[in-house]
Amino acid sequence: MSFDRLVKKIKETGNPSVVGLDPKLDYIPDFLIQKFQEEDGATLKTAARAIFAFNKAIIDEIHDIVPAIKPQAAYYEMYGYHGMKTLAETIRYAKLKGMFVITDGKRNDIGATMQAYTAAHLGSVRVGDNEIEPFGADALTVNGYLGTDGIKPLLEVCKERDKGIFVLVKTSNPSSGELQDQSMNGEPLYARMGDLCEKWGAETIGESGYSAVGAVVGATYPEQLRELRARLPHTFFLVPGYGAQGGGAEGVAGAFDVNGMGAIVNSSRAIMCAYQKEQCAPEEFAKAARREAIRMRDDITNYIKIAK
Amino acid sequence: MSFDRLVKKIKETGNPSVVGLDPKLDYIPDFLIQKFQEEDGATLKTAARAIFAFNKAIIDEIHDIVPAIKPQAAYYEMYGYHGMKTLAETIRYAKLKGMFVITDGKRNDIGATMQAYTAAHLGSVRVGDNEIEPFGADALTVNGYLGTDGIKPLLEVCKERDKGIFVLVKTSNPSSGELQDQSMNGEPLYARMGDLCEKWGAETIGESGYSAVGAVVGATYPEQLRELRARLPHTFFLVPGYGAQGGGAEGVAGAFDVNGMGAIVNSSRAIMCAYQKEQCAPEEFAKAARREAIRMRDDITNYIKIAK
Repeated sequence: MSFDRLVKKIKETGNPSVVGLDPKLDYIPDFLIQKFQEEDGATLKTAARAIFAFNKAIIDEIHDIVPAIKPQAAYYEMYGYHGMKTLAETIRYAKLKGMFVITDGKRNDIGATMQAYTAAHLGSVRVGDNEIEPFGADALTVNGYLGTDGIKPLLEVCKERDKGIFVLVKTSNPSSGELQDQSMNGEPLYARMGDLCEKWGAETIGESGYSAVGAVVGATYPEQLRELRARLPHTFFLVPGYGAQGGGAEGVAGAFDVNGMGAIVNSSRAIMCAYQKEQCAPEEFAKAARREAIRMRDDITNYIKIAK
Repeated sequence: MSFDRLVKKIKETGNPSVVGLDPKLDYIPDFLIQKFQEEDGATLKTAARAIFAFNKAIIDEIHDIVPAIKPQAAYYEMYGYHGMKTLAETIRYAKLKGMFVITDGKRNDIGATMQAYTAAHLGSVRVGDNEIEPFGADALTVNGYLGTDGIKPLLEVCKERDKGIFVLVKTSNPSSGELQDQSMNGEPLYARMGDLCEKWGAETIGESGYSAVGAVVGATYPEQLRELRARLPHTFFLVPGYGAQGGGAEGVAGAFDVNGMGAIVNSSRAIMCAYQKEQCAPEEFAKAARREAIRMRDDITNYIKIAK
């Protein structure tokens, strides 16, 4: 009912980073796609099968050194229900390998509908006498624009099943300031959203000092990262925008507390496409991903020290 | 590239309402579930098949008198990838029957990821030599918290494929005011989000006077409905919260312009569960849905007049 499980995994691996699995078909080596295309033609099923094979190989290579994966739901929905099957299979496989799984879905709705999203991604549904987990992630990213009504259904399942959520607070994109930086009653909207995270999480604070309600804060805004770290002492941060979007390791250091804890930094494309950048054999894609994951870990832990 | 297609359907049917297909398994008559459970057991597949049969029967009964359906993505995700297959099938079937389809997904992300959501729900993806529409709705609800970066990818596809989006502006739930009503530079956040809808839609205004960028404004806030109708002359409104959530027809009248146009009012549970309220035979569920859809149409058009 907090992020203690994630904190434990980060300590075990000495690595506060998460590998984003956002598998555009362009990222997947041709030989993998060809293999499935021979069986199923140029179909969504082929795309989905190639993506699962790609994800599985990367998970096999990184699960001992990286605490978590973050599949981005959009890239699975993009391949229709076959893609959603791959999302479920990817989550299941990563959990089997002991990884913590954050589904990046930025879901939001109210009441019974938010309960449905919660059941889909973090909980279970009943059919006849069976209780079934449709996707079964450990945490879900959510959008808080609708207020408490959209968060409450998540909190119940977080408490029951030891799950967590990350609420969008200050996103990594250039236009995030259009609304998030605007002054609301004297403070920026992102600060107000951050305060709500502290409030929503108040009853779920674990041994680590962090609650089950985390925040998404972009690596591209190092000042706000530091400001929010100080302001939100019980809110664990998911930090996108490292690497490809321009956020550096020095900048993300501000997301961490004095114990080198309190945040996990995401990298997606740089890891998935490491084989392209290295220009190694495409068959080496998973090993190249591992090399880049190690490089990233060392880059970040150069600036922060994780207390034992 | 505007909401002209939807406006035309509303004029044809003389009905500015949309049937929300949010099929919780509790809403589905037992005889339907039993039928599929005998074949596939108590599984997500059974749930998904029962839901499709339910949706199909309702679409068959209402497609001549209701212009649009609004499937809520959460209730399909809830049954895993089988549920997502039912979402795709429901959309395809409603379009075959000539209905306009609004997927209620409240999706949001940035750049390439928002492109992926756009391709999933409104556009197409390429696999080998094939261009495939994964879900193929006519419009999608989205959350604008991330600003222009999250909306731009949608606009491109709206222009290319004559699709539309509805941005959350003032939602129907009790806690929507926690953030949306707060003053931002002297005006409530929802008004600012509304202004952005006008800006985002500016290049996509159709013959109807409405752009491809609509707004979600709840029936439960009649004052804001009237205020926003006056403020946002080119923004088509999707109005949830009629009926079950407490919004009445008199209140939603403020969402419409002088021509009785500019808004579409949603009802989900009251229509899907009309057979329970009527206490008619469960086999009559689709006919009961039609009766309730007619009652709703007459209730709303009692207060507004659609110009020919």
